[in-house]
Amino acid sequence: MITSTTGPQPADFADVRATNLAVVLRFVRDNAPCSRADIAASTGLNKATVSSLVADLIERHLIKETGLTENRIGRPATMLVLDGSPYAAVGMEINVDYVTAVAVDLAGTRLLAWRRAFSPGASLSQGVAAVAAIARRVVGRMTKEGRQVLGLTVAVPGLVGVDGIVRLAPNLGWRDADLSGDLAKALRDPGFPIHVDNDANLAALAEQRFGRHAGAANLVYLTGEIGVGAGIILDGQVRRGHLGFGGEIGHVQLDPAGPPCRCGRRGCLEAMAGIGALPDPVGSSTELEMVVEAIVGAARAGEEAALATLERVGTHLGRGVAMLANLLNPEVVVLGGYYVPLARWLLPAVQAAMRSLTIAPDAGGCQVVASTLGHDAAALGGAARVLDSVDSGRLPRVS
Amino acid sequence: MITSTTGPQPADFADVRATNLAVVLRFVRDNAPCSRADIAASTGLNKATVSSLVADLIERHLIKETGLTENRIGRPATMLVLDGSPYAAVGMEINVDYVTAVAVDLAGTRLLAWRRAFSPGASLSQGVAAVAAIARRVVGRMTKEGRQVLGLTVAVPGLVGVDGIVRLAPNLGWRDADLSGDLAKALRDPGFPIHVDNDANLAALAEQRFGRHAGAANLVYLTGEIGVGAGIILDGQVRRGHLGFGGEIGHVQLDPAGPPCRCGRRGCLEAMAGIGALPDPVGSSTELEMVVEAIVGAARAGEEAALATLERVGTHLGRGVAMLANLLNPEVVVLGGYYVPLARWLLPAVQAAMRSLTIAPDAGGCQVVASTLGHDAAALGGAARVLDSVDSGRLPRVS
Repeated sequence: MITSTTGPQPADFADVRATNLAVVLRFVRDNAPCSRADIAASTGLNKATVSSLVADLIERHLIKETGLTENRIGRPATMLVLDGSPYAAVGMEINVDYVTAVAVDLAGTRLLAWRRAFSPGASLSQGVAAVAAIARRVVGRMTKEGRQVLGLTVAVPGLVGVDGIVRLAPNLGWRDADLSGDLAKALRDPGFPIHVDNDANLAALAEQRFGRHAGAANLVYLTGEIGVGAGIILDGQVRRGHLGFGGEIGHVQLDPAGPPCRCGRRGCLEAMAGIGALPDPVGSSTELEMVVEAIVGAARAGEEAALATLERVGTHLGRGVAMLANLLNPEVVVLGGYYVPLARWLLPAVQAAMRSLTIAPDAGGCQVVASTLGHDAAALGGAARVLDSVDSGRLPRVS
Repeated sequence: MITSTTGPQPADFADVRATNLAVVLRFVRDNAPCSRADIAASTGLNKATVSSLVADLIERHLIKETGLTENRIGRPATMLVLDGSPYAAVGMEINVDYVTAVAVDLAGTRLLAWRRAFSPGASLSQGVAAVAAIARRVVGRMTKEGRQVLGLTVAVPGLVGVDGIVRLAPNLGWRDADLSGDLAKALRDPGFPIHVDNDANLAALAEQRFGRHAGAANLVYLTGEIGVGAGIILDGQVRRGHLGFGGEIGHVQLDPAGPPCRCGRRGCLEAMAGIGALPDPVGSSTELEMVVEAIVGAARAGEEAALATLERVGTHLGRGVAMLANLLNPEVVVLGGYYVPLARWLLPAVQAAMRSLTIAPDAGGCQVVASTLGHDAAALGGAARVLDSVDSGRLPRVS
């Protein structure tokens, strides 16, 4: 009669050890150097269990003893730190005109960050071939360094279903593409999991793990390209919705009488507040970077037309941020992509609009900031998703 | 360096039993009548553990043996069903001109549903006194029936912080009110927890547990009063945001040139799509019920002005629903309050606007439906929140 998806799940005793391994791993990540006694004291696990878990993690090369000891009351404690030397997590992003790849170790240190040009208008099979070629080189490099790749997540600008299928990536011209399956085939079943996710979702994950607001439980990331997408983190997790299609703030209608959007509708947020809404001094919007550089130059020189444009775009963007503040009450909204170089001029207008259009006092405590992670945020988030899966207990097998 | 709020929490062995008690309780709720062997087979817990957990739950009067047995292979199995006869969960709602109270048993069966007039414009202390008086009578009735009240949750139309403080309830004229503290004092520390929550959040909980779409993991409830609020359930839980102020869809700006809103802004969704946006044939908007009845009568009679008004309001509401579909991709949006009697005329326009303004194919699978729970949805959700807390392992002590 009554069903409920809330409440606890069965505590499967077979999973308790995997969960506790992950708990110890995360504790060491956050508190290294630390001793076995520190772990026991903070996690509530007993000392014998902690010793056994630590031995297991050392065997998997996920943590290691430093060789240093600390003299405390009683006998000296051997200190533990993150190891992970034989592992790498890989993230990639496909966008209209580039592919990026990032590899990080378990501590999140970047091992590699590549950016390659990609022919706009490539077909799906050309895209798969290009991504697979770069992925192969990344894996080769990691193997040469003695690292095992734990997983690959590929960021795509578009609707990605919870099943990983790219339902619609309008700027790539892709529809119903099984990108992860195609990549696995192209890489000949590489022995690590391949996932595909929306670029904004992954960039939000990167901010949550590596950004200035790392650890924020309620955070929204806005991509600042021709398109505008939102990665929504609530209560510590990316929220994708029923089929995985959430975060499409770029196509929320701000004004029924607004300018036409590339999606065929009118007055969408991305048509009014996306980078494509900036005037194009070169007369061609393919070279987005040049358009942004030109307007930054004009704004620096105090040119009134440029300043007025940025204020207008910032105000529209602020209406979108106010929508997020009213609906979701995030603690921070992070502006990414090309919004970053423009942030100095955009932010005052964004903040003013957000404050005036949010019902909660002080906009519910919502801050708006520019990303500090640069253009490979989405790829970095792909690597973060691999690390999250290790944190959740999917540990590499003992080699 | 890196902190993360994702991933598993320490598996505290002391909590394992409480968690498993709750798991068994929920299994019996969803699958009664069932045997101990059924529980063991489905939860992965071993039979000795299940027997011990079942004995504990029987002692707490949360489940009971039916006396019936089923003959299966091997020896006959004694069947278990939900008991809960000595318990009640209570929810109340304070709104501008009424207070409702609902009590349910553990299976969600209504034991009591009261509605009392409440003087509009009452001060906080008058409000507390009125709610406390009704709560006292509810508790008295439950005690007389031999039931222990497990908890009380009070729904309030306004911003309720995660700390339970009513930050702002504009229609009640309340601000920074410690309603749960005041109620606990007025009820002289009644021995059960008292919580306060936003009305839309609680109505969403009621839909998730008792509504036609019970069990939906991604559901949004929209209150249809003068104000419009959203209760947002994503991945099975109400999402309140950083300080608890999420769900304020009523004050998202649909049109900067729109009509003035009672909040002082312009073109807010509730000014364009709330019940207050309906024309007031009596010339006074205090009797909302009469306004709605009049327009239902006119629409039934096919009066063009009424039909055009409902189409206009439905289209504006559909723009709000499209915003939800784009941003959150819910599987269902439930229209509550006064939207219910108007749904027959509103829904076609709502659905048309949602479909045309959502980027995901087929609006991401989002359905829009009218609530079937009636005007006490928020109070019922208050009782559901008490049941959720039992489901999460906060079980009543053995009496």
